[in-house]
Amino acid sequence: MAVPPDLAAALIAENFSRDAGGVLRVGGLSVIDLTKEFGTPLFVYDAGTMRRTYRALCAAVTGFAEVDFSVKANPNPAVIRVFHEEGAGAEIASGAEFDAARAAGVPPERILFAGPGKGAADLDRVIAGGIGEIHLENREEMVRVAAAAERHGATVRVALRINPGAAAQGGAMRMGGKPSPFGFDEEAMDAAIDAVEAQAALRLVGLHLFAGTQGLKAETLLGQWAYGLGLAARIARRTGRPLETIDLGGGLGIPYFSGDAALDLGALRAGLPDLIATLRADPGLASARVVLEPGRYLAGPAGLYVARVLAVKESRGSRFVITDGGMHHHLGASGNLGQVVKRDFPLAAVVDGGAAARAATAVVGPLCTPLDMLARAAPLPPLAEGDLVAVLQSGAYGLTASPTGFLSHPLPAEVLVEDGRATAIRHRG
Amino acid sequence: MAVPPDLAAALIAENFSRDAGGVLRVGGLSVIDLTKEFGTPLFVYDAGTMRRTYRALCAAVTGFAEVDFSVKANPNPAVIRVFHEEGAGAEIASGAEFDAARAAGVPPERILFAGPGKGAADLDRVIAGGIGEIHLENREEMVRVAAAAERHGATVRVALRINPGAAAQGGAMRMGGKPSPFGFDEEAMDAAIDAVEAQAALRLVGLHLFAGTQGLKAETLLGQWAYGLGLAARIARRTGRPLETIDLGGGLGIPYFSGDAALDLGALRAGLPDLIATLRADPGLASARVVLEPGRYLAGPAGLYVARVLAVKESRGSRFVITDGGMHHHLGASGNLGQVVKRDFPLAAVVDGGAAARAATAVVGPLCTPLDMLARAAPLPPLAEGDLVAVLQSGAYGLTASPTGFLSHPLPAEVLVEDGRATAIRHRG
Repeated sequence: MAVPPDLAAALIAENFSRDAGGVLRVGGLSVIDLTKEFGTPLFVYDAGTMRRTYRALCAAVTGFAEVDFSVKANPNPAVIRVFHEEGAGAEIASGAEFDAARAAGVPPERILFAGPGKGAADLDRVIAGGIGEIHLENREEMVRVAAAAERHGATVRVALRINPGAAAQGGAMRMGGKPSPFGFDEEAMDAAIDAVEAQAALRLVGLHLFAGTQGLKAETLLGQWAYGLGLAARIARRTGRPLETIDLGGGLGIPYFSGDAALDLGALRAGLPDLIATLRADPGLASARVVLEPGRYLAGPAGLYVARVLAVKESRGSRFVITDGGMHHHLGASGNLGQVVKRDFPLAAVVDGGAAARAATAVVGPLCTPLDMLARAAPLPPLAEGDLVAVLQSGAYGLTASPTGFLSHPLPAEVLVEDGRATAIRHRG
Repeated sequence: MAVPPDLAAALIAENFSRDAGGVLRVGGLSVIDLTKEFGTPLFVYDAGTMRRTYRALCAAVTGFAEVDFSVKANPNPAVIRVFHEEGAGAEIASGAEFDAARAAGVPPERILFAGPGKGAADLDRVIAGGIGEIHLENREEMVRVAAAAERHGATVRVALRINPGAAAQGGAMRMGGKPSPFGFDEEAMDAAIDAVEAQAALRLVGLHLFAGTQGLKAETLLGQWAYGLGLAARIARRTGRPLETIDLGGGLGIPYFSGDAALDLGALRAGLPDLIATLRADPGLASARVVLEPGRYLAGPAGLYVARVLAVKESRGSRFVITDGGMHHHLGASGNLGQVVKRDFPLAAVVDGGAAARAATAVVGPLCTPLDMLARAAPLPPLAEGDLVAVLQSGAYGLTASPTGFLSHPLPAEVLVEDGRATAIRHRG
């Protein structure tokens, strides 16, 4: 099998390092030492990489939007706290995520609640906790939120999530016009606005548009955001009040696969003056807070999933490395989290001096299923029992997006590296 | 969209019932009443269906094989206990599954440990617990098992897992000849036998062949089993001792999708006299215990996943039912557990008198992702907020094979219905 270009090496150079002995280091700490202290498998997150990523994105969109953190990407309160210390609010999708954001120190007014199936218990919990804004996805939910607000004697700030119409298929936007369970169809937007306005316990203050996921092209994102400003202006016109928030969603992508080009923040920045001018020119939008709420983009690059080699097997011309880590901790890397075509996440040997010849290697987990494959053809040096491998881009949609109970293995530890120290933010077991 | 034939209705007629009001009943109990007591989402397992399924399979293979339960399909000790009461031993894939089987009352000598990545800690745990047999997948594992046996001063009974060769591609067998991380390649079998024989702490007593999953054709299974007997005979000849166990794996399938035909137990039964004759004719095999260890086949049909409708949305000609249940509890039903082409699991309305017109309906979960879809086009009557739906064939690879932490919703309860009573075997939360 041909050895593909090595995305893992490029990402290590960007966010981590190797010492003179070829040992992978995170925030200056040897990954070997981390596994001695915390065992394997292991998730390691680098606070320094998170902060750099957050600051770079904020700098790119400054003057246009603020950047919140989408908690579902990594709901560990220690991770949320890093972004909050940098200035991020939180976008949440359940009552427990509200609690996680609060535990991380995010004030309730900086928390937005999105997601298509908000139940009464979660609504009670977040309204009692003073949540900043709830996004409405459908009629039944609108009535539930109003009823919950009335139970608490509160007026709740809400935004309408809109499923864009066919016009949003134009240009690079690549969204809209399709049937969707998410949000109110654009065609029914005016009626939805009027229905919210008729609810005394709700105050319609914003728009929510979430156009897609894993966007790697600035042009696509800019087109979607411009479309969102148009929708926002319609809400302001219909209500006769200036909009207070415009949530343009997350959807900023990171490179996972060989050949993926990273999102060009310079190109993003270059497209913003037009959008900023649009905002300033419309009295209904000029005072609104524009929010981006990425999760994957902020947390993904900072995380590694480290596993130990249990055996190396040559079978009929293919090399298999069997590790103690697998799909039960990292469903995305196994290709079973939405990928139509399974491609390899970037994966590297923890010790790699660079001298040994690389060979395309399949890396599999300990579960009794052919689905449990972390890489099909990773370009790896020779490995033996006891060696370590690391899956890059594992800081988002990793452990909590995985079937951890599958085959009943213990949960791995999660470790945060910051200021030269490693802290267990979830204990093994 | 066309309404497909209704597999759900056929399965309900086979394993459950509806009362005069059209309410789905499990073991005589109303599913509505169960949700009042245990909340939604909810997994419900029917012990009666498990027992009937187990007995029917045992009857079909009597005189040829005993039937053990593969714990990974549903590791809840209460589920394991039902099968153990019927006579099943347990096939496990981790130390925690060993504990679950023991908690269910399975004696250690009736437990087999399979899986390609057995670590030292799990090996210590099961050897200290007196496990009946450990299946060896590769050289490194063989050495680890021998070392663990020596630490415990024990002689451990082991079987060789064999990855069949190209000859097993013939006929209906559809296995073999490919590179695989699982087991020893058939070409290297003699060397593997000799290596195990050289380990003083190991006693080679058996063969393990796991040919595939979701087998719905008797002819395929019979071909695979016949091939396995040939491999077993080779082991007995090489060691010069009669084999004690021949584990032919699980792999018996159940119908999940419209058009799937159930495995024909009569056809299976009709093919067994030849295999029984093969066993009896070979002194190396005649005294061996043949084991089948299905999981899905035994537990799958007995389980329902019940969710409550939160909203019903018509969007651009499509009907979406949004429920409180989703892929975080039932990854398989969402099509993200290995399915190349996503097809719908059988899904039914809990109340369905049969009179209302059916329409193809998408059923989605509460997570903020288009992956969270329980059905794309289920043939359902009109539904409204508060109604209930049930996913059939949900007793295996359900909750524990799902990313339960994704969006941090509470775990659903699991309920076992037996003798007209419902018992929480896992509490909600």
